[in-house]
Amino acid sequence: MRMGTSQRKYDPPDSPTSVGWTEAKTIRIVEEGRPFRLELGKSIAPVDVEYETYGELSSARDNAVLVLHALSGDAHVAGWDRRAKETGRLWRLRKPGWWDGMVGPGKFIDTRRWWVLCSNVLGSCYGTTGPSSIDPRTGQPYGLRFPLVTVGDWVRLQARLADALGIRKFRAVVGGSLGGQQALEWALRYPDRVENCIVLASTPRLSTLGLAFNAVGRHAILSDPNFHHGDYYDREVKPDAGLAVARMMAHITYLCEHGMDVKFGRRLRPDRQSKPMDFGIAFEVESYLHHQGRAFVERFDANSYLYITRAMDLYDAAAWGRGDLVRACRRIRARTMVVSFSSDWLYPPAQCRELALALCKAGKTVTYVDLPSNVGHDGFLVQIAEVGPLVRAFLESGGS
Amino acid sequence: MRMGTSQRKYDPPDSPTSVGWTEAKTIRIVEEGRPFRLELGKSIAPVDVEYETYGELSSARDNAVLVLHALSGDAHVAGWDRRAKETGRLWRLRKPGWWDGMVGPGKFIDTRRWWVLCSNVLGSCYGTTGPSSIDPRTGQPYGLRFPLVTVGDWVRLQARLADALGIRKFRAVVGGSLGGQQALEWALRYPDRVENCIVLASTPRLSTLGLAFNAVGRHAILSDPNFHHGDYYDREVKPDAGLAVARMMAHITYLCEHGMDVKFGRRLRPDRQSKPMDFGIAFEVESYLHHQGRAFVERFDANSYLYITRAMDLYDAAAWGRGDLVRACRRIRARTMVVSFSSDWLYPPAQCRELALALCKAGKTVTYVDLPSNVGHDGFLVQIAEVGPLVRAFLESGGS
Repeated sequence: MRMGTSQRKYDPPDSPTSVGWTEAKTIRIVEEGRPFRLELGKSIAPVDVEYETYGELSSARDNAVLVLHALSGDAHVAGWDRRAKETGRLWRLRKPGWWDGMVGPGKFIDTRRWWVLCSNVLGSCYGTTGPSSIDPRTGQPYGLRFPLVTVGDWVRLQARLADALGIRKFRAVVGGSLGGQQALEWALRYPDRVENCIVLASTPRLSTLGLAFNAVGRHAILSDPNFHHGDYYDREVKPDAGLAVARMMAHITYLCEHGMDVKFGRRLRPDRQSKPMDFGIAFEVESYLHHQGRAFVERFDANSYLYITRAMDLYDAAAWGRGDLVRACRRIRARTMVVSFSSDWLYPPAQCRELALALCKAGKTVTYVDLPSNVGHDGFLVQIAEVGPLVRAFLESGGS
Repeated sequence: MRMGTSQRKYDPPDSPTSVGWTEAKTIRIVEEGRPFRLELGKSIAPVDVEYETYGELSSARDNAVLVLHALSGDAHVAGWDRRAKETGRLWRLRKPGWWDGMVGPGKFIDTRRWWVLCSNVLGSCYGTTGPSSIDPRTGQPYGLRFPLVTVGDWVRLQARLADALGIRKFRAVVGGSLGGQQALEWALRYPDRVENCIVLASTPRLSTLGLAFNAVGRHAILSDPNFHHGDYYDREVKPDAGLAVARMMAHITYLCEHGMDVKFGRRLRPDRQSKPMDFGIAFEVESYLHHQGRAFVERFDANSYLYITRAMDLYDAAAWGRGDLVRACRRIRARTMVVSFSSDWLYPPAQCRELALALCKAGKTVTYVDLPSNVGHDGFLVQIAEVGPLVRAFLESGGS
């Protein structure tokens, strides 16, 4: 999805392997009649959750697969959004859901067999309550008055959604990157509700390097003169400059050196080769990053970027073992598969392997694969041909 | 220099191994009575160059060592700036020149033996003409009306400075990072003026990854609402936000993953451990980067950052061989030493080695060392204890 759109061929909605036209649903989650309690102490109400489902839930309700999305993802995993135009999500007119190659009839997560659920995380900007939602106490968007959220909160809210939909146990939970951390958190928090856990391009905690890039990305937003302490929703100019910079920088971390060399090298844009050099877009790689920045501000909210990256910073699976990852892993009952991508330097293979080793040491069944990759962290999104068969084999071999 | 100041012990000005109090000089370079011609076609006049010298020039003028500075460096290589206060360069009150550990009496570049020269590059903001200088045509600072400059221009201007100072040949040219590219360019452009060429943490050309980070850094500045197309000098608010973001991001690329893990890990600031989490500085690594960003805007000009990073983008030593680096290297007559730092991912060892190999293939004498490092690209500044002896041995063994 992130690798540009020009040459990509998408599965059209009328294809027999597409889930076709989709419509998101929204549900209000009420927890024992009280506001939804958050891990860091605050609470929030109301909480609306946007989610999508594909396939048919079996009468025994034993074929549910929960997909978890990453930082900039959403509940729209596969197919084509029927309401893209009316909801103003115009970028969805041009492409299907973010994991359309993975999920569909006959695809690796086969919707003829599995019922697939994905919901947008709390604090995001795709229909689930977040900083751009109206705060009922003020009638204005929350902005920075939105409480901090955590990966644990997301998973607990997903569990409430599963309760509401009558799903007691998932055949599998699966996600990449920050989605992989949610999958892991599911296996830790609800050991008896997860049969199989698939963690892609993800680690038990973000590295110092990852914290550093998140810090700079947030600073780009927070120091944008148009940020106005997060109250920019009714203003003409939004902190798009800061958000674009954050995204451009983050985007570099999703790729890898070799892949960038092959894809862009030091090539100049064709229209630059005869023009005098200046500070405009000259190199192909500049053009690519500028495109990514521009496209992102069309579809994402700066405040949501702050909340989600902070949740990313704070996650540490070892907290379930008082700082000891092996002890934490002893809680897990799911079979687990961990897949790293050899050229991923944001969630590096060595740190993915640390998770696999901790599971081993805790006496758990774990499959670990380091996939050869020259696309970096984005591998979980673009190397569908390699990661898909692993996901399918693991899913289908896991009996219950 | 970049690794923070708190625990650093500096050689005081009265130390026998310090060059002591220094005073920069400025010279106006006039080239055959005409404006200084630039590689990309424009020209500029007047051109003033700020430079410093340490040690004594021998009567035979055969002990001159030219030091070349990197992106954010300056002519103040060693010792303590006597005029720091009156010139408003207050950060120099707290620390000596950027390579003070390397240059001084009895140090690795021993000023009892060598006469050391360093000048600030064209386009920078430390006394040499740059975008913050007054354009004589308008009486206003140049801003973006300053012409684009290249590494080749810098080296040609340094040669004019050497001419003015009566230096025909350098015993050595030495620099790290963008300074290493200048050293290499010296050996290529003026083969008969360089006896020894020392290239540290530098490559024949910037990688795609480096181009990408520069592109995002410039975009942070160019899209800062306070940038005003480069005409911000008389405004109260300057594009400090964008410049700080550019510097924070770049700073990550100067470190390395392992070094950051050791130095910061995921540790929270002491004052954060009891306070509720928000988007302020929480992790030690955030605190460090914010400090770097703040400190940089006190001492650097946003326009200069644009000009110097673009020069960095455009440099390609292979241009001397019509795209063939080996052919280019055939021009060189200097003995050359190339030192890479094992954890450097901005100018990676493999690309430094490419230069050493090209020199070999061109039949030149080259010494190549990959220094074990856990501080990344900053190694050439902070691993003085390791790189210093190499520089000394190479310098002193090179007969003329």
